[in-house]
Amino acid sequence: MVWSRVPLSPDLIDTIRDQVNRKDLAAATHELSPLDIADLVALFERFEQKPRAVLYRLLEKQRALDLFEELPPALQGELLHGLQDSEVTQLFADLDPDDRIWLLDEVPAVLATRLMRDLPPEDRELTASMLGYPQASVGRRMTPEYVTTRAEFSVAQTLVRVRDRIDQAETVYTIPVIADGRRVIGVVSLRDLIGAAEDTPIAHLMEDVVTATVMHPAESAARLCTERGFLALPIVDSEDRLVGMLTIDDAVKIIEESETEDAARQGGVEPLRRPYLATPVTALVRSRIVWLLVLAVGATLTVHVLEVFEETLAQVTVLALFVPLLIGTGGNTGNQAATTVTRALALDDVRPRDILRVLGRELRAGALLGLLLGALGFAVAGLIYSPAIGIIIGATLLAICTTAAAVGGIMPLAARAIRVDPAVFSNPFITTFVDATGLILYFLIARSVLQL
Amino acid sequence: MVWSRVPLSPDLIDTIRDQVNRKDLAAATHELSPLDIADLVALFERFEQKPRAVLYRLLEKQRALDLFEELPPALQGELLHGLQDSEVTQLFADLDPDDRIWLLDEVPAVLATRLMRDLPPEDRELTASMLGYPQASVGRRMTPEYVTTRAEFSVAQTLVRVRDRIDQAETVYTIPVIADGRRVIGVVSLRDLIGAAEDTPIAHLMEDVVTATVMHPAESAARLCTERGFLALPIVDSEDRLVGMLTIDDAVKIIEESETEDAARQGGVEPLRRPYLATPVTALVRSRIVWLLVLAVGATLTVHVLEVFEETLAQVTVLALFVPLLIGTGGNTGNQAATTVTRALALDDVRPRDILRVLGRELRAGALLGLLLGALGFAVAGLIYSPAIGIIIGATLLAICTTAAAVGGIMPLAARAIRVDPAVFSNPFITTFVDATGLILYFLIARSVLQL
Repeated sequence: MVWSRVPLSPDLIDTIRDQVNRKDLAAATHELSPLDIADLVALFERFEQKPRAVLYRLLEKQRALDLFEELPPALQGELLHGLQDSEVTQLFADLDPDDRIWLLDEVPAVLATRLMRDLPPEDRELTASMLGYPQASVGRRMTPEYVTTRAEFSVAQTLVRVRDRIDQAETVYTIPVIADGRRVIGVVSLRDLIGAAEDTPIAHLMEDVVTATVMHPAESAARLCTERGFLALPIVDSEDRLVGMLTIDDAVKIIEESETEDAARQGGVEPLRRPYLATPVTALVRSRIVWLLVLAVGATLTVHVLEVFEETLAQVTVLALFVPLLIGTGGNTGNQAATTVTRALALDDVRPRDILRVLGRELRAGALLGLLLGALGFAVAGLIYSPAIGIIIGATLLAICTTAAAVGGIMPLAARAIRVDPAVFSNPFITTFVDATGLILYFLIARSVLQL
Repeated sequence: MVWSRVPLSPDLIDTIRDQVNRKDLAAATHELSPLDIADLVALFERFEQKPRAVLYRLLEKQRALDLFEELPPALQGELLHGLQDSEVTQLFADLDPDDRIWLLDEVPAVLATRLMRDLPPEDRELTASMLGYPQASVGRRMTPEYVTTRAEFSVAQTLVRVRDRIDQAETVYTIPVIADGRRVIGVVSLRDLIGAAEDTPIAHLMEDVVTATVMHPAESAARLCTERGFLALPIVDSEDRLVGMLTIDDAVKIIEESETEDAARQGGVEPLRRPYLATPVTALVRSRIVWLLVLAVGATLTVHVLEVFEETLAQVTVLALFVPLLIGTGGNTGNQAATTVTRALALDDVRPRDILRVLGRELRAGALLGLLLGALGFAVAGLIYSPAIGIIIGATLLAICTTAAAVGGIMPLAARAIRVDPAVFSNPFITTFVDATGLILYFLIARSVLQL
C-alpha cells in the first residue's frame, strides 16, 4: 500500500495534540501512520517534551529508529528525557493490556538500553512497562548495567572497558560480544580474559551464547540461567539486539518468588507478602478465606449428590461409613497426580501439548493404584461386612483412583494451556472436584450391585 | 588424666593390625589413645598404606595434625594416597552413623583440602563422607578447587595466583583472604581486583566474610549463598579454617532438589528420579502406592468413627449429607495452614521454638475462618433444612476450622523438631487426620443439639 503524501498542516498538529491530551492513542496512531520520516521530524519539532514522548511510543520500531536518527541531537536528548518522565511512563503503565498489544511495538534496542541505564533500579520496572515489555517478562527484571565487547577487540581493550564501567555495571563476569546494531554474537567470561594474554583477540576466546528475548517469561529465563549455571544471561529484543542482562542473583530471586507462589497455590492459599510471623492474623485469614469459600461452595455439590442418593443411603446405612474413606482416597490420588505434573510443568519437563500422553500415563497409573487398593478394599470390606459390600468398595476404589489420577494429571496442563497458573487448580480444588464425582461413582456402583 | 608411657611392643602392632582387619575400629581407637606422637610416628612407619590410612582417621583432629607434621615427607604423601584409596573411603562410608559420631573427628583442614583437591568431582562425595562430613551437609557439596589470597599480598600478586589456578579452580570470582592456619579473615571479589591499582594491598579491598561450616545442612548454606547474592560461600571447619567453597550454581542445584522433594512430599508422593515423561508408569505407581496405602489405612479410622455413630446416622440420615462438605473444609483449612508454615520453615522464617506462637496464631486464624464459614453454614443450612441443622453445621464448621488450622500449623514444626522432613506430614496426611477428628466433633455436636 502506498500512502499519498499528506501535507503537514497546523490543523493536523492541533488534531494530534488534542488526541494525545484526551489519551486517545488509537486515533493518534492512526494520524501518524501516513506521515513519512521528514514529516515526523517536522511534527516532533513542534511538540512539547511530554506529548512528544507519548507520540514517539506510538511508532513502529523501524520508524521509531529512523526518526530518532534523523532528529537533531538536542531533540534526541530531550526525547530520552521525555520517555523517562514519570507521567509518560505512568500513562503507558496504566494502559489496558488489550490496548498495549496493538499500540506498542518494542522500543529500538539502542534507545531501550540508554533509557534504562539512566534510571535508578527502582524506576526500571515502570520504564520497562513503557518500553512494551509485558508483566512477568524478563524485560521487567533485567539489568541495563553491563559491559560489552566486540570480536575484533583485544583482551587488553576489553579490560579497559570493564574497568571504565566497573562502578556502574551490575555484572562484569559475563561479557556479551556484540556486532553492529548491538547484535549479540557470543559471550566471553572475565575469567577467560584474566587467563589469556593481553593481545589475544576476543574472537579467540568468544563462546557460543544463549540468550532470551525481553518478552520471555521471567521464570523460564531464570531457570535457563540457573540450569545452565550462567552467571548472567544476555537479554535481546526480537531482532537479537542486546537490551539487558539477567544476573544469576536476580534469577534466583525470580525462581524463589515463583516457588513460594506455587507452594502457596498448591495448598489453596494466596502467597504471603511478608514473613509468616510478621504477618497479622487477619492477613493470614484474608490469604485463605477466598479459596476456602470457593471450595466450600464447590463442596455443596457433594451435598446435592448425596441428596439424590438419600434413599439408597437410608436403605443401606452401612454405605455411609465408607464415604470419607472413598473420597479421601480419591482426593489423595488426584493430589499425587496433580503435584507430580505441576512440578514437571514448573521444571519444563512437560508441556501442554503432551496432554494426551499425560492422560494415558495417569489413566494407567490410576488404574494400577486402583487395582491394588481395590483388591485390598474388596478383601477387607468383604470379610468384615458382606461380599456385596466388598465388591462395591473394591470396584469404587478402582473407578475413583482411575478418574482421580486422570483429572489430577491433566488439570495443571489444561490450566497452563488457557494461560492460568497451573498451581491455581490446587490440590484442594482437585479434591473437591474428585469428591463429587467419586460419590456419584460410588452410589451408581452400589445401586447396580445391590440392584436397588 | 596422665597416661603412663606404654612401650611400643611388636605385640601392640599385631593387636592393632588385627583390630583393623576385623574392622573393630572402636578397639583400635582405644589402643591408640595412650600413645604419644613419637609412638604414633613409630607405629605408622610400621604399617602398610591402607591400614595406616584407616588408623589415621581414628585420631582426634589435633593429634592427627601433630602426627602429620612429624611424619617424613614421603610418608605424608603415602598417607594422603591411602586416605583417597577407594577401599578406605568405602570402609568409612559404610560405617553405621552411630559409630561415626564418636569415631571420627574432622580431618585437619590442610589435609582435607589437599585430599579433596586431587580427586575427580565424582569421587569427592565419598571422600567427604570419609572426612567425617555428615550426609546432606555442605561438606559433601563444596568444591575444593578455589583460589585464596592473603591480606598482605598486593592485587598484582593475587592476580598471579588467580592465573596460576585458573584452569583448575571452579570459582575465581570470590577469593577468600586467609591468615595463618588457613583461617578465613575476609573475602575479595575478582571485580574489585580488576578495578583496583596493581599495587593495592588486599587488606584495603578485603570485605567482611560470611562463612558456613562443613557440618551445616547443605540446604541452609545454599539459601545463605543465594539470599545474600554471593557467587561463592567459603566453607570452614569448626576452627574457621577454610576447607572449600560452595558455588552459586551448586547452591541453586541444592535448593532445586530440595524444592522438588518438598513439592512431592506435600502432595504425598516420593520425588521422581527422572523427568516425568521419562519415568515408567510402574515407577509412578511405586512413588505413590506407599503413601496411598498408609493414608487409606489411616482413613479406616473414619469408618470406625462413623460406626460408633451409626445409630445417630440411622436416626437422622440428613446428617450424612454434610459429611464430605464438613471434612473437606477441615482438610482444606488444615492444608492451608500446613502449606504456609512448611514454606515459612523452608525459608527459615519460622523455627521449631516458635511452636507456641504459631499455635496461637493458627488457633486465632482458624477460629476467624470458622466463624465466617460457620455463620454462612448456619444461615444456609438453617434456611434449607431446619434451625437445629443450621446450628449443628455452623458450630461444627467453627470447631473443625479451629482444630484443623491448629493441627496443620504445628504439624510441620513438630516434624522439624523431631528431625523429620516437615513436608512428610504432607497435606494428605493432615487431611486424613483432620477427617477423623472432624467427624467426632460433628457427631458430638449433633447429638448434643438434637439431644440424642
